[in-house]
Amino acid sequence: MTNLLTQVTNDEGITTLTLNQPERRNSLSLDMLRALGDALSDVAANDASRVVVLSAAGHVFCAGHDLKEIRGQFGSYAFQKELFEKCSEVMQQIVHLPQPVIARVAGVATAAGCQLVASCDLAVAENGARFATPGVNIGLFCSTPMVALSRNVSRKHAMEMLLTGDMIDAERAEKIGLVNRVVAPELLDETVYTIAATIAGKSAHTLNVGKTAFYRQLEMPLDEAYHYTADVMASNVVSHDAKEGISAFLDKRQPEWRHK
Amino acid sequence: MTNLLTQVTNDEGITTLTLNQPERRNSLSLDMLRALGDALSDVAANDASRVVVLSAAGHVFCAGHDLKEIRGQFGSYAFQKELFEKCSEVMQQIVHLPQPVIARVAGVATAAGCQLVASCDLAVAENGARFATPGVNIGLFCSTPMVALSRNVSRKHAMEMLLTGDMIDAERAEKIGLVNRVVAPELLDETVYTIAATIAGKSAHTLNVGKTAFYRQLEMPLDEAYHYTADVMASNVVSHDAKEGISAFLDKRQPEWRHK
Amino acid sequence: MTNLLTQVTNDEGITTLTLNQPERRNSLSLDMLRALGDALSDVAANDASRVVVLSAAGHVFCAGHDLKEIRGQFGSYAFQKELFEKCSEVMQQIVHLPQPVIARVAGVATAAGCQLVASCDLAVAENGARFATPGVNIGLFCSTPMVALSRNVSRKHAMEMLLTGDMIDAERAEKIGLVNRVVAPELLDETVYTIAATIAGKSAHTLNVGKTAFYRQLEMPLDEAYHYTADVMASNVVSHDAKEGISAFLDKRQPEWRHK
Repeated sequence: MTNLLTQVTNDEGITTLTLNQPERRNSLSLDMLRALGDALSDVAANDASRVVVLSAAGHVFCAGHDLKEIRGQFGSYAFQKELFEKCSEVMQQIVHLPQPVIARVAGVATAAGCQLVASCDLAVAENGARFATPGVNIGLFCSTPMVALSRNVSRKHAMEMLLTGDMIDAERAEKIGLVNRVVAPELLDETVYTIAATIAGKSAHTLNVGKTAFYRQLEMPLDEAYHYTADVMASNVVSHDAKEGISAFLDKRQPEWRHK
Repeated sequence: MTNLLTQVTNDEGITTLTLNQPERRNSLSLDMLRALGDALSDVAANDASRVVVLSAAGHVFCAGHDLKEIRGQFGSYAFQKELFEKCSEVMQQIVHLPQPVIARVAGVATAAGCQLVASCDLAVAENGARFATPGVNIGLFCSTPMVALSRNVSRKHAMEMLLTGDMIDAERAEKIGLVNRVVAPELLDETVYTIAATIAGKSAHTLNVGKTAFYRQLEMPLDEAYHYTADVMASNVVSHDAKEGISAFLDKRQPEWRHK
Repeated sequence: MTNLLTQVTNDEGITTLTLNQPERRNSLSLDMLRALGDALSDVAANDASRVVVLSAAGHVFCAGHDLKEIRGQFGSYAFQKELFEKCSEVMQQIVHLPQPVIARVAGVATAAGCQLVASCDLAVAENGARFATPGVNIGLFCSTPMVALSRNVSRKHAMEMLLTGDMIDAERAEKIGLVNRVVAPELLDETVYTIAATIAGKSAHTLNVGKTAFYRQLEMPLDEAYHYTADVMASNVVSHDAKEGISAFLDKRQPEWRHK
């Protein structure tokens, strides 16, 4: 699988996952999805990893599913079901990963590639990056990509992308909330690294607690969300890292976090 | 009913519905709502219609409910209930229509008129268009309009419109997500036509599948949304139009869609 | 309690609540939360109050919880639970208050202070105001603040604040939807007053009906939201103030609202 995806964790706890099939536009074939899913499972269990950067080799971030593979299986509803269920599972692995995930977007991110960006916690794009959910152009509406897209941007913006299939540029993606920041290509790695290093400097326990609570409370009504998070806060505050962090802050010293 | 509303479908499958009581500011009287509801039912069953443009004659897009009609029925809770239930039904007909609906907004869209814009899938406004939910000024909070408004724009933006009743201009409407695009008046028809023609060129089956799934998955928690849309995708991919669209794309030719 | 919080209602029905511990950065100690909760209960029952401005004395709007108090109770999970539950209760009192609440933000609003801004119906900030949810820096993720924050701004914007802990300026807060308007410091009071006076001129009954319905319908699926609000509208329209407001509008005179 090493040819499909590379995985490197540096000394600071920044894990970089790189889609590595530029000659196939890093498309999410079933094999690529399995490789990505396996890598995410591996990262989830890796105490040395504190933050993940999702990157891609070459000039295309990710072109979505592999249409040749899909055409080769037109006769098999079972294959198609497996493909889209696996894709949905991998996208949810990103959401449920203990570590924050930052998409580093250079080039084009379309269909399930756009979904990948939307599924990450944060996204940084170079100013030439472009985004689309063009399934409607080939008769296959981007119905799974829209789950992530419509949870990032407002309805009319999502619908414009989905119904027209048109490409939007990075500036527009930033404006509508699909990506956090847009920078010049030569600043992309530096910007992503700075954010990743900032996050990697936090308590891994606290990041895990907070990220998990974030997506859970989003799906609750207000009173339930407060009931749940008040308990998360009270449990968090009596944990080692919060006691250490609060004490360090009040004593004007650097905190020392425990590992996960 | 032809005097209240006109309905024309062109050769490209673009149906234009035009509110046609400019002398009454295209207000949503019970009769106008019935005419609009009937027209939408008609369009839903019309295989020749692939996309809908919702337009209005005169200098006011739509001024909301007919206050004289409402005052004439102050004694009848039953009438008021019928009026607001009919209005809510028509707004939901737009959301559930198989075809995408584009609001073409010239002039003022207020109260239920603003709701109409918010209920459409897409909206294009000329730069002199203005929007408000001014019910609070007359003691009648825009409670049904806010259902659509608050599903288009963020809370504080919705609340500002609802609590102050103030008019916002087209530029602000675009900024907060109520409309997709703002153009000079002389470019309004061309812009709306271009978007409508783009959408009309897609598979009507695929548009229907996608639009239906969009609004359904929005109301689901993430895992349920993915479970549902993975099935929508797998079913979509084995349909005629997706097979044709994918094959046409891979073979570098134009697809030929079936009718609905 | 007068030293913790001041409460003044003027002749126009504008109630100003001012956090008044600038020497402790207006932090939300358990005592401050109790004072604020008591004040909100008092305002809820006050027919002379039609709109609330939430303000703060000094150069810091609110720095969140009192970390010294929290550290002093590290041994008591019960205390921490009480603190975060009280905080959650007070934030929900703002949401459920019959009167609209406007945050007037000068200086820094962090953690639960940022939550306070997000919990208000509207927010106006001076251009030097800054916002952060920096709990992650001290090992204590801003899990209760994010309930309010994530209901104001889009996911990626919320996550950027929560995961990095970084401060954002007023302009960015306006851009992402956390505050409605940003003005020069010398215009802050005038701007807040103008909005407050506009709202105070509306029917208190109507404001209460509408604000209550707004937050309730937000948590419903579309059909239920329309079913509910159609009933709210029909009941609203046969109330004194709507009949008066509609008649006054049609008769081109000023309406005379009843008190609550």
